[in-house]
Amino acid sequence: MTKANLAVLGATGVVGRHILEILKELEVPYNSIKFLSSKKSAGTKLEFDGKEYTVEEAVPESFDGVNVVLASAGGSTSKLFAPEIVKRGGVIIDNSSAFRMDKDVPLVIAGVNDGDLKSHKGIIANPNCSTSQLMLALEPLNKAFKIKRLIVSTYQSVSGAGLKAINELKESTKASLNDEKFEPSAFKKDIAFNCIPQIDIFCDNGYTNEEMKVVRETKKILHLDENLPITCTAVRVPVFVSHSEAVDVEFELPVTKESVTEVLKNAYGVEVVDDTDNYVYPVPTEAAGKDPVYVGRIRKCLAFENGISFFCVADNLRIGAALNTVRLAKLVIEQGLY
Amino acid sequence: MTKANLAVLGATGVVGRHILEILKELEVPYNSIKFLSSKKSAGTKLEFDGKEYTVEEAVPESFDGVNVVLASAGGSTSKLFAPEIVKRGGVIIDNSSAFRMDKDVPLVIAGVNDGDLKSHKGIIANPNCSTSQLMLALEPLNKAFKIKRLIVSTYQSVSGAGLKAINELKESTKASLNDEKFEPSAFKKDIAFNCIPQIDIFCDNGYTNEEMKVVRETKKILHLDENLPITCTAVRVPVFVSHSEAVDVEFELPVTKESVTEVLKNAYGVEVVDDTDNYVYPVPTEAAGKDPVYVGRIRKCLAFENGISFFCVADNLRIGAALNTVRLAKLVIEQGLY
Repeated sequence: MTKANLAVLGATGVVGRHILEILKELEVPYNSIKFLSSKKSAGTKLEFDGKEYTVEEAVPESFDGVNVVLASAGGSTSKLFAPEIVKRGGVIIDNSSAFRMDKDVPLVIAGVNDGDLKSHKGIIANPNCSTSQLMLALEPLNKAFKIKRLIVSTYQSVSGAGLKAINELKESTKASLNDEKFEPSAFKKDIAFNCIPQIDIFCDNGYTNEEMKVVRETKKILHLDENLPITCTAVRVPVFVSHSEAVDVEFELPVTKESVTEVLKNAYGVEVVDDTDNYVYPVPTEAAGKDPVYVGRIRKCLAFENGISFFCVADNLRIGAALNTVRLAKLVIEQGLY
Repeated sequence: MTKANLAVLGATGVVGRHILEILKELEVPYNSIKFLSSKKSAGTKLEFDGKEYTVEEAVPESFDGVNVVLASAGGSTSKLFAPEIVKRGGVIIDNSSAFRMDKDVPLVIAGVNDGDLKSHKGIIANPNCSTSQLMLALEPLNKAFKIKRLIVSTYQSVSGAGLKAINELKESTKASLNDEKFEPSAFKKDIAFNCIPQIDIFCDNGYTNEEMKVVRETKKILHLDENLPITCTAVRVPVFVSHSEAVDVEFELPVTKESVTEVLKNAYGVEVVDDTDNYVYPVPTEAAGKDPVYVGRIRKCLAFENGISFFCVADNLRIGAALNTVRLAKLVIEQGLY
């Protein structure tokens, strides 16, 4: 495997920190690595692979000689720097939503649609966290039984909204337990002991951006027909890490609990956790810090002739963001796609 | 209106306490009232309507001369005493699941299917909390557009599992914030900052009892065809009071956001809270202690041609249990159905 010159953009954020960890875990080979951030966080010291680094402010020249950029710094930062990276011959693997639906940008989940990587023109997009975990479970099922209709309701952790949101859940919960008033700022409502049916802004059709990401990204990643009916309700719940999803899916072909379980047991990145007799099913606190997408509560869906329902849980900071970013970087390096 | 002799069975429980409050709020007329409980809680003093009462242990003779019993003491207690109450000429309005699917027992939500009350033979069942709030929203929509298919994912508060569960959420959250270990007992997993996809025990088909209650009770209450496709995923979330439900429903007739909103605005017991431009939508903390079923996030369902999705939230202790029990008692008294 060749060794690349790497840069991590947004190194001090909650996803950035996980990217550092996972770069080591997956032993991604590198010649050089640099850590970039906004002006505000520049100067932060961090340790990587036994050496200390100082985080630098990202400017266009930061990307001179860089082969692969792992970016998790928000949409506007990605839009600003992606052309600079591409101009300099580098590849950006972008965690933001800036380029996901761009026809010229492959939207890839490692182990799901790796083949799409080859068509990249310098920018590779990492799907939204709630889409990613779903795709790892649905891609093998789509291959086996062909998805006809999909209904998803999410139970999303606050870490998807960053470090500030994690802190807000902690502080607002303490305030609530002490009967003190709390003024929310990371969320539109106080998240303590609450559920908020809004993630991201609202679109004209009454859906949130988060919900439409699941709808659109699923179709792009699984190469489904544009008119295939998919809907989603995205809800923020008072959980620190891991998103959960209640999934009802109708297939073209007949399915049983057994046939679906068999496919999922052999699926890349998926772990079936499903023994209701012994209260075995996935929950967010047990998925946090782990790599697999945990799938349980697999059962015939009572709403469709050929339908299956299941509950899937994964660490949104890992599979939903950092883990897939690093997996994609590794694939790009291994396959010499830079 | 005639005045009846009342008894509250399970007066010291979390629902029982709300029944007391609401009996006053709705000014239910009574000649006499008594408060009954298990042996364990007997002797508790409580105040009602400006007078102090001592809770008595429930025995068959407790029901001598009682016209209407508001029961919220669990299935086995209801099974034990219902025949004793009926034998003595009384009517029991039962909050437990013991008789709900009994063909001879009407399952009624006040304002939804009051007409079914007339057929009672001494026992009237109050639906499960997650069904009740849903029915208040769906009954008028079924009347207007005819339900064809229904998919529900719930976000249920711990208070549905009683006082012990409320306390467990408090204590386990404190433990989690202090990085201390906590051994759950009210739930199968630690509920602190977690979601648990199990409410009640599992049935043979892989669904929980709670999920099958929504499926079966909905059909019974709305007089739907036994084969109408309905499915449900029921999830416990770390919320103290109020259940939330993400609802996707397909209708026989064409629907729009506007036509559905119009019907819901005129529906009994429903309040439309839906102005996404101004972040107005229902959340559990804001519904707690209130009577209406709050419905928001109303939008065309992207999974069905004639489909609507919405998010509905209600205080499970009130509309899901105590409020409907008292409303039914009032109807029985007003209509002389005892």
